Amino acid sequence: MTTTTPRPTPADTEQGDPRLDADVRLDVDHLARVLLGHYPELRLGARRLMTDERLHRIEGQTLAEHRDRVLGQLRILAAEGDVHRSFPARFGGADDHGGFLARFEELTHADPSLQIKSGVQWGLFASAIYHLGTERSHDQFLRDALTVAVPGAFAMTETGHGSDVASIGTTATYEPETEEFVIHTPFRAAWKDYLGNAGLHGTAAVVFARLLTAPAGAPRVDHGVHAFYVPIRNPQTMEFLPGVGGEDDGLKGGLNGIDNGRLWFDHVRVPRTHLLNRYGDVAADGTYSSPIASPGRRFFTTLGTLVQGRVSLDGAAVTASRLGLTIAITYGNQRRQFQGGTGDEVVLMDYAEHQRRLLPLLAETYAAGFAHEDLLAAFDDVFSGRNDTPDTREDLETLAAALKPTSTWHALRTLQTCREACGGAGFLAENRITGLRADLDVYATFEGDNTVLLQLVGKRLLTDYAKGFKHLDAVKVARLVAERASDAARFRTPLHRALQTVSDVGDPRRSAGQLRETDTQRALLVDRVETMVAEVGQALRPAQKADPATAAALFNSQQHALVEAARAHAELVQWESFTAALARVTDPGTKQVLTWVRDLFGLTLVERHLAWYLVNGRLSAGRARTVTSYIDRLVSRLRPHAQDLVDAFGFEQAHLRAPIASGAEQARQDEARAYYRAQRASGDAPIPEKHTR
Amino acid sequence: MTTTTPRPTPADTEQGDPRLDADVRLDVDHLARVLLGHYPELRLGARRLMTDERLHRIEGQTLAEHRDRVLGQLRILAAEGDVHRSFPARFGGADDHGGFLARFEELTHADPSLQIKSGVQWGLFASAIYHLGTERSHDQFLRDALTVAVPGAFAMTETGHGSDVASIGTTATYEPETEEFVIHTPFRAAWKDYLGNAGLHGTAAVVFARLLTAPAGAPRVDHGVHAFYVPIRNPQTMEFLPGVGGEDDGLKGGLNGIDNGRLWFDHVRVPRTHLLNRYGDVAADGTYSSPIASPGRRFFTTLGTLVQGRVSLDGAAVTASRLGLTIAITYGNQRRQFQGGTGDEVVLMDYAEHQRRLLPLLAETYAAGFAHEDLLAAFDDVFSGRNDTPDTREDLETLAAALKPTSTWHALRTLQTCREACGGAGFLAENRITGLRADLDVYATFEGDNTVLLQLVGKRLLTDYAKGFKHLDAVKVARLVAERASDAARFRTPLHRALQTVSDVGDPRRSAGQLRETDTQRALLVDRVETMVAEVGQALRPAQKADPATAAALFNSQQHALVEAARAHAELVQWESFTAALARVTDPGTKQVLTWVRDLFGLTLVERHLAWYLVNGRLSAGRARTVTSYIDRLVSRLRPHAQDLVDAFGFEQAHLRAPIASGAEQARQDEARAYYRAQRASGDAPIPEKHTR
Repeated sequence: MTTTTPRPTPADTEQGDPRLDADVRLDVDHLARVLLGHYPELRLGARRLMTDERLHRIEGQTLAEHRDRVLGQLRILAAEGDVHRSFPARFGGADDHGGFLARFEELTHADPSLQIKSGVQWGLFASAIYHLGTERSHDQFLRDALTVAVPGAFAMTETGHGSDVASIGTTATYEPETEEFVIHTPFRAAWKDYLGNAGLHGTAAVVFARLLTAPAGAPRVDHGVHAFYVPIRNPQTMEFLPGVGGEDDGLKGGLNGIDNGRLWFDHVRVPRTHLLNRYGDVAADGTYSSPIASPGRRFFTTLGTLVQGRVSLDGAAVTASRLGLTIAITYGNQRRQFQGGTGDEVVLMDYAEHQRRLLPLLAETYAAGFAHEDLLAAFDDVFSGRNDTPDTREDLETLAAALKPTSTWHALRTLQTCREACGGAGFLAENRITGLRADLDVYATFEGDNTVLLQLVGKRLLTDYAKGFKHLDAVKVARLVAERASDAARFRTPLHRALQTVSDVGDPRRSAGQLRETDTQRALLVDRVETMVAEVGQALRPAQKADPATAAALFNSQQHALVEAARAHAELVQWESFTAALARVTDPGTKQVLTWVRDLFGLTLVERHLAWYLVNGRLSAGRARTVTSYIDRLVSRLRPHAQDLVDAFGFEQAHLRAPIASGAEQARQDEARAYYRAQRASGDAPIPEKHTR
Repeated sequence: MTTTTPRPTPADTEQGDPRLDADVRLDVDHLARVLLGHYPELRLGARRLMTDERLHRIEGQTLAEHRDRVLGQLRILAAEGDVHRSFPARFGGADDHGGFLARFEELTHADPSLQIKSGVQWGLFASAIYHLGTERSHDQFLRDALTVAVPGAFAMTETGHGSDVASIGTTATYEPETEEFVIHTPFRAAWKDYLGNAGLHGTAAVVFARLLTAPAGAPRVDHGVHAFYVPIRNPQTMEFLPGVGGEDDGLKGGLNGIDNGRLWFDHVRVPRTHLLNRYGDVAADGTYSSPIASPGRRFFTTLGTLVQGRVSLDGAAVTASRLGLTIAITYGNQRRQFQGGTGDEVVLMDYAEHQRRLLPLLAETYAAGFAHEDLLAAFDDVFSGRNDTPDTREDLETLAAALKPTSTWHALRTLQTCREACGGAGFLAENRITGLRADLDVYATFEGDNTVLLQLVGKRLLTDYAKGFKHLDAVKVARLVAERASDAARFRTPLHRALQTVSDVGDPRRSAGQLRETDTQRALLVDRVETMVAEVGQALRPAQKADPATAAALFNSQQHALVEAARAHAELVQWESFTAALARVTDPGTKQVLTWVRDLFGLTLVERHLAWYLVNGRLSAGRARTVTSYIDRLVSRLRPHAQDLVDAFGFEQAHLRAPIASGAEQARQDEARAYYRAQRASGDAPIPEKHTR
């Protein structure tokens, strides 16, 4: 957790003199290299591959055509796409988990459906076989999954249970007589749902079910959620196998290159060896064993593999935000609308409101990108085994649960603002923003609902605050927090005092200068997280002696505050990653501009939560006023660098593929201006009626 | 302007005792009647018509199929839909402008594409002939437009000029020799663009062009933007007529039932009588005449007819928000997820965060609905001629320019939150929310870009503040405001003093009580608008003596603040409409619940802008804390009434057509719970592994 661990502070830049700003130059190539992060060659290679037209989305395809195309693209990637990097060498991989995801994120340029369909096949289906299975499972199932000889579904979610996997209804009952598991759907709400590859293309699925054993003469025992490899369709006829049924989920709000669907099982039998048996196994006689004694910890370990998907969505959200901003800012630098004071029409990016709408989103996109690189590094540390402990796993899961909601919601907000900033042109499918937004929409709720994930983060923050409890239900969290609530005053004091010195300064110019300082921004952001967590902890105190229903009600009353605290934590994490990244920038001009971008991000966070800082006495009213005026100043300072800042994302036209960002608008504006210039020069311009009076 | 005119205050309800809340009953039928507003029978009739399956959107149709279907639906409406109400009796209408729009809004249930295609045909194309033409124009063109014998485009927007109609490049040059206008597109940026009916179906267009005359021997005179009736396609072959060209805009982010397209004109000739000549005419010899001497006022009068579209979009945004909330809240009352303190799974709507996300949006939707009814009444007052003066027209235009951005942005936010609140089910096209959101997206930028409209409102607020200037460019507004800036102190004092008494009260319980009071809410909202406008006025003061470029730069520096002031004004207008509507509620229980909804709306606004109230000393930190806790209390008070509040919108299943809001989820949950209940009763339930130790 980064909340309480200050990182090295890069030297603060000098208080800039606006008259000197003109001399500041951003080195686009240098910044582009910084942004390529830990896997520059892999990313550049993936981007080169993504210029292949065969991989590009064709807007306006029917559901059937789009699904068919994406399946074909999957086979192209299987052959040419280095998509097995995370798997062992004997399966054609390189045991490179971080590089695997870095390449995956770059699929977003081509078509988010391709990213997600690939995620279903390799990131979920094949990875479940790999991570939840043993060598036995790998030998049986992995090769066909990796080559897409078997397109597979990841059958975890049920119609009746979305993010609450622990409550799924599907059962897998072991029969010692036949040495088979009987997979069964007991009621409609237990149908598997929203599964990619289940609607049409999948011939097998990794099915999550409650493993039931019936020791001789004893009642059945529920060993909790386990994963099973289950063939579902005849690969020749593509008909469902006996006992398997399903439905196509049909058209969705986006991602229509993926054939989501539903599955149900009517006493479907699979051999004992189809249990993916890394974290739990059943002997031929029905004896259950597991390397993890606690069913709860076993469940969370099983689900831990899901973190890969969340890391990948975080990266895709950053990519999509960058695409949208590159299109909108490029267009905004060419498009003119309404006359300004000089009689000439004004370039959109010169309007203060246009800058105010786009540039803070650009700053946040930079922050999300740097945070994502840190997440990717943490992911690789754990999954490579270099630093794989229960603690680092949990830190990774918490980090992913904090960043995925933040970046996916940010992407939706950013793409929508970009769409509107491009007006009617932004609404045309050819300019791609609406399609990206439609596709990214579901990123906010799949692979863990954003609000549910933020609650997990909030509980972890409470855990850190109250020390000593993890993965607990509402009642237990409330109780344990309550035990520590009396520490709250001590917990808050030092930071609070530190900030008093900030808020006591009267001179507004000096105030703005202080807000620019790294330590001030950090102190403001850290203090907010810690105070909010402590307040929730305090509020949960009476739960200690309450009955379960009362304790749950009390926890519910704090749900909103807890989610807000988790959001604040995620924002702080992004800010810390951005700040740490500044140290990697060596070119002085680039570092100056990027420090302004970081300041804009930090101050935007403070402005967003300004009421909190005022209510809690962390900023005086006078200081609060300087936040907004300093943001205004940063925005106009950054305006000349806006194009460079999006160019550094490194997209070519083959990635953007948006006519309005191709230079066509500039050509149209130039032609119109030349026309009127020539008309004036020839003396042939019509006289406005009002000049004839 | 409602800013400074307090309306009658309905009696404040008593401070409720939560223990008595259980007795409060909402009369759904009574509330539904109140919500039907000024045109209950017309709305109910339109809703009955909208149960006709032929008018329903079929999700997943191709572009071609969807366009074809909507054109067919247009012809059904022409025959059966009472869509000519706003036109004179001799054209089958009833001169009923408000009723015309009220019915139009109800088309949104069936398919927003149908609403907008109808809007293009009757609200823009036929209405332009009617409002901008004279009897001569009506006789020539109106009947075929109304019957859809001639599907028509409204060719105003150009590729190079969106909301800035004054700068369009298309010309219409009068030739006395032939008594013809020559319509011409001088460069690519002057192509007409985004025009409904231009892509495929239109055989004529009302084309906006700069009217040029060339008096004998004198230079050409530009009389500004006028509208011309121009045939564009051969109705038999559907080929473009000679000199006319165009392109299909192709697939869009939504509204794909409409064939948007581009048009250009290469010296296309139309007879002199094709000028829609109400506000400007050209005699056979080329002499120009107009009943409006000022070209500026003539331009804004010509554009004034556009207000109808904005009123209609405001209504559609309300309808779409109501649809989304009805679906999400109905589902949220049936769906269960995660176990609560009692071991039973919790209904989504019982989660505090779920309530916090949906109920303030519900309150804002109520406010937007009441404000829309007031807008509709103002529109009917003006367009019926009952109260048609330059002042009432301008008030109407300002009101529409304030409400359309507010309600369309609200609809997008609401639909997105509803989508997420329904999880994966919300992403399925069959549940309609994603489709509605995609369609409504462009409502934020067409018929006047939201940000541009809010700027117009802001300028009007400055006008009222500075008195005596209207429709001025940035430079003039800055100068004129500056002249009045010295009044600012006087302007602000009384309200500021009134509010001091509010903020000086220390007892938090009494504070919450005061925030509940209508007058307190009004004072807080009014004060904010007035102060923000005055501050912008003050800031623009130096523009008085500045050169045009400096004055424009100064105005630009205040653009964000001006847009924010306009937003605050629009929110106040909505709040006033809601408050006025409470007086129309006669049933005491309904009035009580609706007053809580109004309070929730008012307090949500105060919370949204809490930093402003704190920075400006309008609320103390202690008082500010009570805002949030009072919102929490209101939200839990309203939770038991949430279903009634959406049921009162009056939609039937034939309007909702969303499987998740059909009761299917309740049936699934009931089946699952019955299954587990039976299992427990039979003693056959598996024993959790952890209980076997």
